[in-house]
Amino acid sequence: MALFTKEEALRYHSVWRTGKIETVPIKPCRNQKDLSLAYSPGVAQACLEIAADPENVWKYTNRGNLVAVVSNGTAVLGLGNIGPKAGKPVMEGKGVLFKIFADIDVYDINLDTTDPEKIIETVKLLAPTFGAINLEDIRAPECFEIEQRLIEIMDIPVFHDDQHGTAIISGAGILNAVEIAGKKIEDLKIVVSGAGAAAIACSKFYVTLGVDPANISMFDSKGHINTGRTGLHPTKAQFAQKKAYASMAEAFQGADVFLGLSTKGLVSKDMVKSMGKNPIIFAMANPDPEIPYNDAKEARPDAIMGTGRSDFPNQINNVSGFPFIFRGALDVGSKKINEAMKMAAAKSLAALAHEPVPTEVMDMYGEKDVTFGIDYVIPKALDFRMLEWEAPAVAKAAMDTGVATRTLDLEQYKKDLRARIDASHKRIEAYVGTYNYDF
Amino acid sequence: MALFTKEEALRYHSVWRTGKIETVPIKPCRNQKDLSLAYSPGVAQACLEIAADPENVWKYTNRGNLVAVVSNGTAVLGLGNIGPKAGKPVMEGKGVLFKIFADIDVYDINLDTTDPEKIIETVKLLAPTFGAINLEDIRAPECFEIEQRLIEIMDIPVFHDDQHGTAIISGAGILNAVEIAGKKIEDLKIVVSGAGAAAIACSKFYVTLGVDPANISMFDSKGHINTGRTGLHPTKAQFAQKKAYASMAEAFQGADVFLGLSTKGLVSKDMVKSMGKNPIIFAMANPDPEIPYNDAKEARPDAIMGTGRSDFPNQINNVSGFPFIFRGALDVGSKKINEAMKMAAAKSLAALAHEPVPTEVMDMYGEKDVTFGIDYVIPKALDFRMLEWEAPAVAKAAMDTGVATRTLDLEQYKKDLRARIDASHKRIEAYVGTYNYDF
Repeated sequence: MALFTKEEALRYHSVWRTGKIETVPIKPCRNQKDLSLAYSPGVAQACLEIAADPENVWKYTNRGNLVAVVSNGTAVLGLGNIGPKAGKPVMEGKGVLFKIFADIDVYDINLDTTDPEKIIETVKLLAPTFGAINLEDIRAPECFEIEQRLIEIMDIPVFHDDQHGTAIISGAGILNAVEIAGKKIEDLKIVVSGAGAAAIACSKFYVTLGVDPANISMFDSKGHINTGRTGLHPTKAQFAQKKAYASMAEAFQGADVFLGLSTKGLVSKDMVKSMGKNPIIFAMANPDPEIPYNDAKEARPDAIMGTGRSDFPNQINNVSGFPFIFRGALDVGSKKINEAMKMAAAKSLAALAHEPVPTEVMDMYGEKDVTFGIDYVIPKALDFRMLEWEAPAVAKAAMDTGVATRTLDLEQYKKDLRARIDASHKRIEAYVGTYNYDF
Repeated sequence: MALFTKEEALRYHSVWRTGKIETVPIKPCRNQKDLSLAYSPGVAQACLEIAADPENVWKYTNRGNLVAVVSNGTAVLGLGNIGPKAGKPVMEGKGVLFKIFADIDVYDINLDTTDPEKIIETVKLLAPTFGAINLEDIRAPECFEIEQRLIEIMDIPVFHDDQHGTAIISGAGILNAVEIAGKKIEDLKIVVSGAGAAAIACSKFYVTLGVDPANISMFDSKGHINTGRTGLHPTKAQFAQKKAYASMAEAFQGADVFLGLSTKGLVSKDMVKSMGKNPIIFAMANPDPEIPYNDAKEARPDAIMGTGRSDFPNQINNVSGFPFIFRGALDVGSKKINEAMKMAAAKSLAALAHEPVPTEVMDMYGEKDVTFGIDYVIPKALDFRMLEWEAPAVAKAAMDTGVATRTLDLEQYKKDLRARIDASHKRIEAYVGTYNYDF
């Protein structure tokens, strides 16, 4: 059921010209006058305005729409520590998604170091270029300190998508699944497989949504994280339980939620069978979930099952979050992406799943009659309405919590967003369309 | 005679969207399959190929066509130390020129530090992203050490354009001017006003062209650089003369060449009158040269006068160099831009000035009958033929000196270059043309 062959994937990355992103001048460059405006001597006017008031950098440069996707390639997708060169296609790809989904420009920044101090220092020095920083595919536990320290010293948003993207999207799914399953969020008993960046961030985010941290049973490669274990990194230790499970299977008994951010094959049908009523199973290992979709549903037809895959219901995909979260943050000149903004993103996404699904969206997946229920707890990853739901919600939360530096008329903003993206897609089509080769 | 108003310049930088550059996905992104190739899971194939052989980074990412324009804004155009934010419009503008003249993609990297060690470290860490590094508008003397150290540790080209760009273009002009004036390069007596990055680099480059370093009289803000002065930075000390001039006017007497890389008004008509036969005057202070063009020509109708301005003959503009030098270097995967490559660029530019000028080029300047002579010693800055002359010459020099990692059929390469740029311009026009606003 592969959507593509290896050859197609490599061809995609090498045809026409290598890679996936070009930089394009967007102001006229047809003659001597144009060029004298773009560069010397005309550019000096813009420089002088910014020198007189640094805030003018948002007015005369692309900074306000430019995000750095920063990685050192130490935790790339399911591939692990492959380094900054091998990680570059992913970072360019992230730039593609930012642009296609939210008209955000991205420079991918692939750093040749595993030293957290050097990453922090570098990002700090790079700040004048960018409106926001998306940390990506940096391994745990370093990623926690890197993000935390950068958030403290930077006056632009810093957001580690592997942590918070997954937390926000799956959190939206949890909110809706709890509603469908008739559970109470404060009573949820959750089993988490994995204790990396995403698992920790999801668990912390669920706690802000109302989950009792004592009810979270987290497992890493050495087993259950409990207070009897020694040498636990503080990020894991915060989820150490007093009781100690001998196996994940033991923790599964009667559990309400399984959150998989680990690797395929770790969960059996029997384990799923032992879960509580209307179990919520988000098995997000990519490309193969901790238990195959069909196995889980066979074991428990009442399960609300989500995966990272587009070919099954309830796809939990970061692309449902980061483009719109950054869009909203950039558009109000936010200094942070704070908890309120993450919460707003999750709640708007959860709310959107209650709305009727446009036919165009169902057509993209070859589906019919997609309605709110156990097979549809979060919007489809390609649902274009997320832009208009999430970005204004995030922008509003930024304004409400005092981290925005500009205010927006949210109704007008919501209307403008769609037109903006449509125009951006037209420009991109026009550009790509001029490549005179077969694809 | 300003080509534009301040308002036009600011409008250019803010209309449509702020700044001058966007990033654009160049592979299809129309549906789920496309996106699964651009990002997860398809991207993993490209990652794995690079992880298996790092050289594949040139095959599956945009690295091979991507240049970092790195600055800290400490020596921006004629504006001085205005910092990285105020310098950003210049760096974006440099990206525009790279793209328009040579189809090279640029990320502008504006660093918030004046510490050379931090700049060196940062550029080193950024290396996996880029195919070459263009250092820009970093003040002297730090720029010398930064460039030198980076050249030693990096396996991609590192080129400080303020130094070598000016040296190469003016060097080409010197080669032709000497021919026209009937002078011998080894006998030239040269007065240099300014002792910054460009002045030092020009002087060094002229020495490689055959100038006797003992014949170079250099002046900084404190006067003539001679061995009697104390506390001279080594970069200046290398040009300290044994004799000591009380004034620049004194050095002008009988001089063959004046090189101005300082500020307006430093040279009088009397000084010019005192120069030797067929004096060569390259007064490159921007926007106002050390002596106005008309004043110099009035004083000495036999002068070969060049400036940085497009509205007078013999415009000495870095844009005649860097796009094509990097083009040639990137296209053979060069590890350096070495002296042979710089020399090749200067000589090809000098040779091109001997060729008949196409009508289209003369039309851009509203001129007729432009032919090799005192009013035309270097090609016009907008002469599109420079691409086909310089880039292959630079590529050949890289291959000849063993710094290239790929070989090219130079005849075919020369033919392909023009088609490549034409196609790139069409793409850019198609993109910009979709902005539905007046400019």
